[in-house]
Amino acid sequence: MTDPSLNFTLSARDGPARAGVLTLPHGRVQTPCFMPVGTQGTVRALSPHDLRAVGAEIVLANTYHLHVRPGEDVVAELGGLHRFMGWDRPLLTDSGGFQVFSLEGFRQVDEDGVEFQSHVDGGRRRLTPERATEIQWTLGADIAMAFDHVVPGGADEATARDAMDRTLRWLERCARRHAELGDGRMGGLTDGRMGGSVDGTIRPSADPPIRQTLWPILQGGTHSALRREALQRIADLGDWTGLAIGGLSVGESKATMYRTLEQLEPALPRSLPRYLMGVGFPEDLVAAVERGVDLFDCVAPTRMGRNGTAFTPDGVVNIRNAKHRTDPAPLDPSCDCETCTTYTRGYLRHLFAAEELLGLRLLSLHNVRYLIRLAGDMRRAIAAGDFAGWAEAWRHRYLQPEPA
Amino acid sequence: MTDPSLNFTLSARDGPARAGVLTLPHGRVQTPCFMPVGTQGTVRALSPHDLRAVGAEIVLANTYHLHVRPGEDVVAELGGLHRFMGWDRPLLTDSGGFQVFSLEGFRQVDEDGVEFQSHVDGGRRRLTPERATEIQWTLGADIAMAFDHVVPGGADEATARDAMDRTLRWLERCARRHAELGDGRMGGLTDGRMGGSVDGTIRPSADPPIRQTLWPILQGGTHSALRREALQRIADLGDWTGLAIGGLSVGESKATMYRTLEQLEPALPRSLPRYLMGVGFPEDLVAAVERGVDLFDCVAPTRMGRNGTAFTPDGVVNIRNAKHRTDPAPLDPSCDCETCTTYTRGYLRHLFAAEELLGLRLLSLHNVRYLIRLAGDMRRAIAAGDFAGWAEAWRHRYLQPEPA
Repeated sequence: MTDPSLNFTLSARDGPARAGVLTLPHGRVQTPCFMPVGTQGTVRALSPHDLRAVGAEIVLANTYHLHVRPGEDVVAELGGLHRFMGWDRPLLTDSGGFQVFSLEGFRQVDEDGVEFQSHVDGGRRRLTPERATEIQWTLGADIAMAFDHVVPGGADEATARDAMDRTLRWLERCARRHAELGDGRMGGLTDGRMGGSVDGTIRPSADPPIRQTLWPILQGGTHSALRREALQRIADLGDWTGLAIGGLSVGESKATMYRTLEQLEPALPRSLPRYLMGVGFPEDLVAAVERGVDLFDCVAPTRMGRNGTAFTPDGVVNIRNAKHRTDPAPLDPSCDCETCTTYTRGYLRHLFAAEELLGLRLLSLHNVRYLIRLAGDMRRAIAAGDFAGWAEAWRHRYLQPEPA
Repeated sequence: MTDPSLNFTLSARDGPARAGVLTLPHGRVQTPCFMPVGTQGTVRALSPHDLRAVGAEIVLANTYHLHVRPGEDVVAELGGLHRFMGWDRPLLTDSGGFQVFSLEGFRQVDEDGVEFQSHVDGGRRRLTPERATEIQWTLGADIAMAFDHVVPGGADEATARDAMDRTLRWLERCARRHAELGDGRMGGLTDGRMGGSVDGTIRPSADPPIRQTLWPILQGGTHSALRREALQRIADLGDWTGLAIGGLSVGESKATMYRTLEQLEPALPRSLPRYLMGVGFPEDLVAAVERGVDLFDCVAPTRMGRNGTAFTPDGVVNIRNAKHRTDPAPLDPSCDCETCTTYTRGYLRHLFAAEELLGLRLLSLHNVRYLIRLAGDMRRAIAAGDFAGWAEAWRHRYLQPEPA
C-alpha cells in the first residue's frame, strides 16, 4: 500500500471488532461500513443524491450485469462507471463470479473460465479471470474483485476444495492481468480513452486519474481448514490491499456462517480491510463485526424496502399491515432520514396499498440509512470499548418479539 | 375576495394572454402555472422534495381516488392532505366528477348524484354534490372544485346541455354545502378535529387555520353558445374566486378545443384565475395561454416520463431509442433539473432498458420541470409584451420534425 491514495488505518479495536478508515482514490470510507448495491449501475429506487443524503460512502456495482447490459464499452464511452451513474465517491465492482454461478439456465465451468447464458438476450457468453479483470478495469471502480468460483453453502469438502483451488488459480491470472493493465501493457482496451491507458491509470470520470486496486476473494465453503489454507495461499500470492470473504450467506445456516467467521478470524491479516460479501441483515452485520469484519454489501435493504418491509431498532416492520392505517408515528422515530422525518406510517402504508412508486423509494431510502447508521453506531461502540455490551443491548431490542 | 389570504392580481397582459399572482392560504402561485397531478396523494415517482426542487407552486390531488383509498377519514386523522402527503404549498382537489365519469364499469347518474363502482374493491359508492364538497373540506386543500357532470368531447348539443344544466344545479348545492361548512353549521364532519370545525376553518396541517375556497366548473362541451350561457349562470350564482373550464381535452380535436377557448375568452371575467382542467401538452399550454388561460393540470408529464418520453425545446424525445445508447449529451441541455444536470442520455436509456425505477423518476422529474419552466417562459414573454412572437418562435422549434 505505497499508493497514498489507497490505505487502511485502524482507529480502534475491541476484541475482534475493529473500526478504521479506508482511503480510496474517490474518497474515504469509515469502517464498519455497509455498501448499498447498485447492481445495474443504480441502487434500485434511489438516486446518487439520495445515497449521499443517507451517508453512503461507497457503492457496489456488478460486473456481470453491466457487461451484459449496457456493456462495459458503453460505460467507458460515457466516461466510466462513476460518471455514468453520477456517483463521485468510491465504487467497488464485484467480479461477476457470484452472478454467473447464481444464474439460472446454462452454465459450464472449465479451467479457463465460465460459459453462461445472458439473462438479457439468452446469448452465450464467456467470462474468464482475464476478461472479468479487463471489464472491471474498463468500468473503472476504485476496487475490483478477483473472479471466483462460488459453490452452494452445503457443498461437501471435495467440491469446496475444487472450487477453492480453482479460485486461487484464477486469482493468479486476475492479478497478472491487473498488473499488466496497471503497467500499461494492455493499453487501449476499448478506445484508448479509457481503461488501461498507457500511463497505467484509469480515468473513470472528470476526476484525476486513479489507480484501481484488486482484492482477492477467499473461498472454502464452511470448511475452516480449507479457509485457513486458502488464506495462507492468498497471502503467498501477493501483497494485497484488502480481502473479501466469499461463499458465505449462500444457503448455510446463520450459526454456521457465524462459526466459520469465528474460526477464520484469528488467521486474518490485521492490516487488511475484510469484506464479507453479500451480507446484510442487521443481525448479521452485528455478528460479523463482532467476528472482525469491516465491510458489507447486500441487496436486502432495497429489496425488502420495495416489499414494504422496514428495519427499525425494534425489529422489522411490515408497513402494509392494516394496523398502520391511521398511525401518525414515523416509521422509526430515532431515524434522521427523509422518510422518517417527513411521513407518517399511515401515509407510507397508503403508498404501498395504492402501489405508488414513492413508497418503494421511501422504504429503500430508510433501510439503507438504517444500515449505515447501524454501522456508525458500531463504530462508536468499538471506539468506546464496549462493543460486547452495545451488541447485547442492540440484540435484546432488535430480536425481541414484536409486542402484540 | 375579501379574505386577504386569497386573491388574484394580474401583473401583465398581452392580448388575451395574462400573467398574475394567485395568493392562497398555503402560498403564492404565479400564473401561467402548471400544476403537477398527485392523483392518490403523491405525484407518481416524485417526492415533495423533488416537486419543490422543480419549482412546483401548487399540486392537484383527486377527491375520488382519496375517497376510495385511503378514505378522507384516514387523511383527516393523519392531519389533513397537506400533512398527509408532506406538501406545505397550495393544493387543489378535483371534485371527483371527472373520475367518476371516466371510470370503466358501472355508473348511474340521477339528479341527486352518481352511483358508481369503486375501482379498488368493486363496491358500490355514491357521490353527490354535497358529499364531494364534504370530502374535499375534510381533505383540506386550498381550492376545492364543484362536483360536475362531464360528457365526452363529441357529445351533441342536447347531451351537453343536459349535463351543463345538471352541473349548474349541482354547483348551487356544492356552494350551499361549502358555505354551511364554512359557517360551522356542518361542524365535526369526521371526528371534530378536522373539516368543518366550529370556527369555520380547516386545519389541514400544523399551519394556521385556512379558509378553503370553492371554484365552479364550466361545462357545455364544444358548443360555444352553451358555454356562454353557462358562464352567465355561474356568475349569477355567486361571487367566485376562480373559474375552471371543464369538459375539454376529453376526445375532441385540438383545433376544436382551441376554437372553443377562443370563442369563450371575451366572455370570461377578467378578475378571476381561469383553470383549464386536464390540459397538459406543451403545445396546448402555449395555445391556451394565448387564449387567456392561467392554470393547467395534466398527468402527461409523469405518465409520459414513466414511458420514456421526454419534453425538450426541440420536441419530444423517446429515450428508449437505440440512438441514445452512447449519447453523452444531457436530455435537454437548456434544462436546470437534476436529470439534465447530472446524467447523460446514454445512462437514462440504460435505466429504461434495464427497467430501473430511477429512470421513471428522472424522466418524470424533467417533464414536470419542463412544463414549469415553460410556464415561466410564457410569464416573461407576456411581461415583455411579445407573447405572439415568443409563441411563434417556440412553436417553430418545438413542432419542427426531428432531424433525421
